[in-house]
Amino acid sequence: MYSFQDDYSEGAHPAILNTLLETNLTQRVGYGEDSYTREAQELIRQAIHRPQAPVFFLSGGTQANLTVIAHLLQSYEAVISTDLSHIYGHETGAIEAIGHRIIPVTSTDGKLGPQDVLKVLEANQMRPHTVIPRLVYISQSTELGTIYTRKELQELKACCESHDLILYLDGARLGVALTASDADLNLEDIAQYTDVFYIGATKNGALCGEAVVFARESLGENFDLVLKQRGALLSKGSILGIQFTELFRAGLYWELAKHANHVAQILAKGIADAGYSFVARPQTNQLFPIFPQSVVNQLRSKYLFHIWQEIEGQGQIVRFVCSWATPLDQVQELIADLKSFH
Amino acid sequence: MYSFQDDYSEGAHPAILNTLLETNLTQRVGYGEDSYTREAQELIRQAIHRPQAPVFFLSGGTQANLTVIAHLLQSYEAVISTDLSHIYGHETGAIEAIGHRIIPVTSTDGKLGPQDVLKVLEANQMRPHTVIPRLVYISQSTELGTIYTRKELQELKACCESHDLILYLDGARLGVALTASDADLNLEDIAQYTDVFYIGATKNGALCGEAVVFARESLGENFDLVLKQRGALLSKGSILGIQFTELFRAGLYWELAKHANHVAQILAKGIADAGYSFVARPQTNQLFPIFPQSVVNQLRSKYLFHIWQEIEGQGQIVRFVCSWATPLDQVQELIADLKSFH
Amino acid sequence: MYSFQDDYSEGAHPAILNTLLETNLTQRVGYGEDSYTREAQELIRQAIHRPQAPVFFLSGGTQANLTVIAHLLQSYEAVISTDLSHIYGHETGAIEAIGHRIIPVTSTDGKLGPQDVLKVLEANQMRPHTVIPRLVYISQSTELGTIYTRKELQELKACCESHDLILYLDGARLGVALTASDADLNLEDIAQYTDVFYIGATKNGALCGEAVVFARESLGENFDLVLKQRGALLSKGSILGIQFTELFRAGLYWELAKHANHVAQILAKGIADAGYSFVARPQTNQLFPIFPQSVVNQLRSKYLFHIWQEIEGQGQIVRFVCSWATPLDQVQELIADLKSFH
Amino acid sequence: MYSFQDDYSEGAHPAILNTLLETNLTQRVGYGEDSYTREAQELIRQAIHRPQAPVFFLSGGTQANLTVIAHLLQSYEAVISTDLSHIYGHETGAIEAIGHRIIPVTSTDGKLGPQDVLKVLEANQMRPHTVIPRLVYISQSTELGTIYTRKELQELKACCESHDLILYLDGARLGVALTASDADLNLEDIAQYTDVFYIGATKNGALCGEAVVFARESLGENFDLVLKQRGALLSKGSILGIQFTELFRAGLYWELAKHANHVAQILAKGIADAGYSFVARPQTNQLFPIFPQSVVNQLRSKYLFHIWQEIEGQGQIVRFVCSWATPLDQVQELIADLKSFH
Repeated sequence: MYSFQDDYSEGAHPAILNTLLETNLTQRVGYGEDSYTREAQELIRQAIHRPQAPVFFLSGGTQANLTVIAHLLQSYEAVISTDLSHIYGHETGAIEAIGHRIIPVTSTDGKLGPQDVLKVLEANQMRPHTVIPRLVYISQSTELGTIYTRKELQELKACCESHDLILYLDGARLGVALTASDADLNLEDIAQYTDVFYIGATKNGALCGEAVVFARESLGENFDLVLKQRGALLSKGSILGIQFTELFRAGLYWELAKHANHVAQILAKGIADAGYSFVARPQTNQLFPIFPQSVVNQLRSKYLFHIWQEIEGQGQIVRFVCSWATPLDQVQELIADLKSFH
Repeated sequence: MYSFQDDYSEGAHPAILNTLLETNLTQRVGYGEDSYTREAQELIRQAIHRPQAPVFFLSGGTQANLTVIAHLLQSYEAVISTDLSHIYGHETGAIEAIGHRIIPVTSTDGKLGPQDVLKVLEANQMRPHTVIPRLVYISQSTELGTIYTRKELQELKACCESHDLILYLDGARLGVALTASDADLNLEDIAQYTDVFYIGATKNGALCGEAVVFARESLGENFDLVLKQRGALLSKGSILGIQFTELFRAGLYWELAKHANHVAQILAKGIADAGYSFVARPQTNQLFPIFPQSVVNQLRSKYLFHIWQEIEGQGQIVRFVCSWATPLDQVQELIADLKSFH
Repeated sequence: MYSFQDDYSEGAHPAILNTLLETNLTQRVGYGEDSYTREAQELIRQAIHRPQAPVFFLSGGTQANLTVIAHLLQSYEAVISTDLSHIYGHETGAIEAIGHRIIPVTSTDGKLGPQDVLKVLEANQMRPHTVIPRLVYISQSTELGTIYTRKELQELKACCESHDLILYLDGARLGVALTASDADLNLEDIAQYTDVFYIGATKNGALCGEAVVFARESLGENFDLVLKQRGALLSKGSILGIQFTELFRAGLYWELAKHANHVAQILAKGIADAGYSFVARPQTNQLFPIFPQSVVNQLRSKYLFHIWQEIEGQGQIVRFVCSWATPLDQVQELIADLKSFH
Repeated sequence: MYSFQDDYSEGAHPAILNTLLETNLTQRVGYGEDSYTREAQELIRQAIHRPQAPVFFLSGGTQANLTVIAHLLQSYEAVISTDLSHIYGHETGAIEAIGHRIIPVTSTDGKLGPQDVLKVLEANQMRPHTVIPRLVYISQSTELGTIYTRKELQELKACCESHDLILYLDGARLGVALTASDADLNLEDIAQYTDVFYIGATKNGALCGEAVVFARESLGENFDLVLKQRGALLSKGSILGIQFTELFRAGLYWELAKHANHVAQILAKGIADAGYSFVARPQTNQLFPIFPQSVVNQLRSKYLFHIWQEIEGQGQIVRFVCSWATPLDQVQELIADLKSFH
């Protein structure tokens, strides 16, 4: 059985493990005050040309989302996101547990636009009886593997600025978003068009690790206290710093993402050639083809993958995910199998 | 200017104030341990034929909702309600502030049915990534003045029982719901078909006061601690007990509600006769007629009322509320004015 | 049985009930936007000579404490108070329930001094592992009936200003504190020497009601949202405004407090004359004499009062509380009884 | 400069990194549902002879403490711990941030006894105004490096059972506690004498990792939801399972702890021989000697260590920590230096 279930089915890229081994016995101070962490922070600041930007490393995406939102919002302030967003659909009410409403906006492609935001603002104006929408949460790439274009992100940022909203970008899969063949944004752009974002590494070659970056620098003040309080500050913080240094020292982060996209695009073409369509445009490493039940059944005998949704009478939307670790020949075998299933 | 804005525009029914005056200098112990409070609890228990039911008095509806829900749910458990519900639309995120998601279900008549509940359950099954829906919140009467029938409530309760859900009924306007001409439920039925409910008095003649009743008695354990912790336990708890005793001693609660319904139904007929329709069936003391903008403008020179919603090109939905204090002649004057506006 | 158990054993001062009756059927808008509430706010602003000070009315002290603290603190910020404080000892963890630590400082007279504050600051400096003490909570009068002098309050305020701390004064019994024979502070002084405070009326003649005053005006911004969210905003807000207007229109608030102090001082002298001492200096309406067990037993046959604490081998500290409603002859009878018990 | 600052100054024991490397490319499912995690759970269950005990892996101690306590307590329930405890002194109010009071008990040796617990219970009996103490938090070894004996732990457990309290043991340094030369408890005993505990690996050779064990099995139900909600569930959960498997497969966990104790005891003897005393008995890998300021100054030129506390006029209490990675010759060099400083 080969698994296309997700992009966290393996450990870490070998280069990362090797660096952990090489540095292993060098003593360092705790709680992210070590030189490895400083180096990683510096590399990220350089990449976005913001030498003062606060950068923090955490061990997971839900943790990043809940600490950032706990840090930035007052209790009566709410989050706007799509109904497909990770914080709304897959984090067990983590945001509500720290006191904030998520206002879900229906989306078909995983993206949120200025019109969605304006409608939410309009519906929440009866002070003091309605919540104050204050933070806009988006993902790049989205839960459906799609990506925001420069124009879309610019417009959303402009809308947020006009209405005193914070734009927060969940970059659990930022690598594949910025290296997609359709991409017209780079990391510096992300810092320019958002207020806060995180760079995900767990899904792009690290053992674990996400880097929260406060592009609007003043927002980062006192975040260290929130990190510690919410259990997100590792005593051996250096192990995150070491991994991010390895990923950003010479572009490994982008190479791994490119590979994931590359094999995913080959797979997407294979699926399309075999006559199947997708529920969302296959732009990055997550593919959402629609298969008849018989095909799903045959696939399941050889592959692990996620059933996304039933479509009444048409079969199922499934999710295939490729990663830095997915070998090209596995993708080719899957394509061959798909064609043979006819 | 006469106000049809709400059912809390006046103080209290005079009989209530008089009882407060008569008992005023009799000493009593604090925090709801007094004999007036015990008498009020007893009257309510008798009315529902549940001699052991825990009954608590609070000073407002949001307080009732947030203490009950804080008390009953674990942090990963969520509430199901319509998108029109008071807790979703008019309590400034009170439920999220104590840690719980409200899952909003689209509704046109303010009611929630078993099918709505089942859909939410189905969409939240990916343990441990999704929340656990656990409490179903409904209002009787609803935010649109409509009421659940016996059959509807029975079916909803059966659905909740099958799926280990708690059914909680917000009775801010329970009086008008149970005395409506369409009503086929009484207070005892409410206790039978729900797990917890509250009897609202602020909107039915009291200075302030809501009675939370744990129909499923075991659920009431330790609620006293939550009341105190959330600032909902009055040191002069007796003033709530005295008011509820007066309201339930000889049926005053029901008389006041009947009056509100009576004048509201006359007003509803007048509005219909004048050629206007309603966005929701006028069953209780809240009416939601649709008026052209010109009529709204003329009404505003003499009356206070709430603009509920714009309808593109058709004018506005407005809300008229009658209460125990609304004189019949004011209603007749309004009807006459409405006809003259043509 | 006559009760000296507390200062909330009766309803309201008759003048207040009469005003509620007189205004009863005059319509007013909801949620504290009515003219009675505005008048009460104005009276308080005039009394403190701060025409812009935000003033809000709530129905209880725990509610005041928890909404103010929820409003003012970030999650990693903590409260400093004595270990005798109401928020630490008698509010069921209300402050922790909204997310904040209370750091208790041992006190024998109920007061907190600059040295106490400095010690707490010193013990919490290991960022980001320690909390940030940020709000100093005091009561005037204290839980032991003692009062802060002008000098003490000035020094505490200066200490808070030097260390960027918010000074919050719980005035559940502010009336008796400012009208005590020892008092050298008035309401305007309280506004000058604190950042936020509340004026308690539940324990000084109202049915219920506390007025939160933001002396440092900017701190009041958005407090309306917190009030609503925490269930502290009455729909019939006017009933609080009406009561405060009556209390502050012509000095009734101060007269009631003076009466409570007056009879309490007579009682204190009687107790002292009978040969008993006090655990705290009897300055206001709460007295804490120490009686042998035999005296306590005899008192209990005629009077209700609170047993404060056992003292190994010496009997018990009890609490006697006088109020606006305590008749002088009851106090004289108690004194006579005490002397007869010998 | 050599660091005795803590036991998390290095990466992981090489055997752990090697296992991570060997298993690196083997695919596994996410979120702790993988076979490595199951194997690690099984090894722990076998060690405590409880084949059904729920075992969960997290990435840090604060996270373990806050998720366990969030999971087990109702909002009005409080924690009893010493004033030296990690949750009280070094976690930035993490427990209050999730809604619970910690009641601190003064301790000189880091331990808590039944008498301490009983005093807290006695002081919190005025229902519903006081919190309900419900969970007793202890650390083994303690913050001062001392350890509970079998008798002490038995008595504390008996006290907890009598009063319906949950006994939770923070085992961040459980390895050194159970392998100390004074130790008379093993892992199975810990499971017998507590309700919940965690086995810390971050401070005993892992990159990161703590194993929460519900010895009272029913308490573990639904903890998976809390883990996810609080951001404590790693998508690559396997990396924790792999580390714990390596640590518990053949006793590596105990060997590493023994080494830490061994070198620490040599250091303790050296310090004592040099004429210095300790503020707490040196039983495990943390030593708290008292040095004059001049000695501290000289030590600081060659060594990193933590200044624990000033002692007026007597110098400073410092903390030296040894670990699995501390070479014996470094300890000997430090002893030699200490003697030369005279």
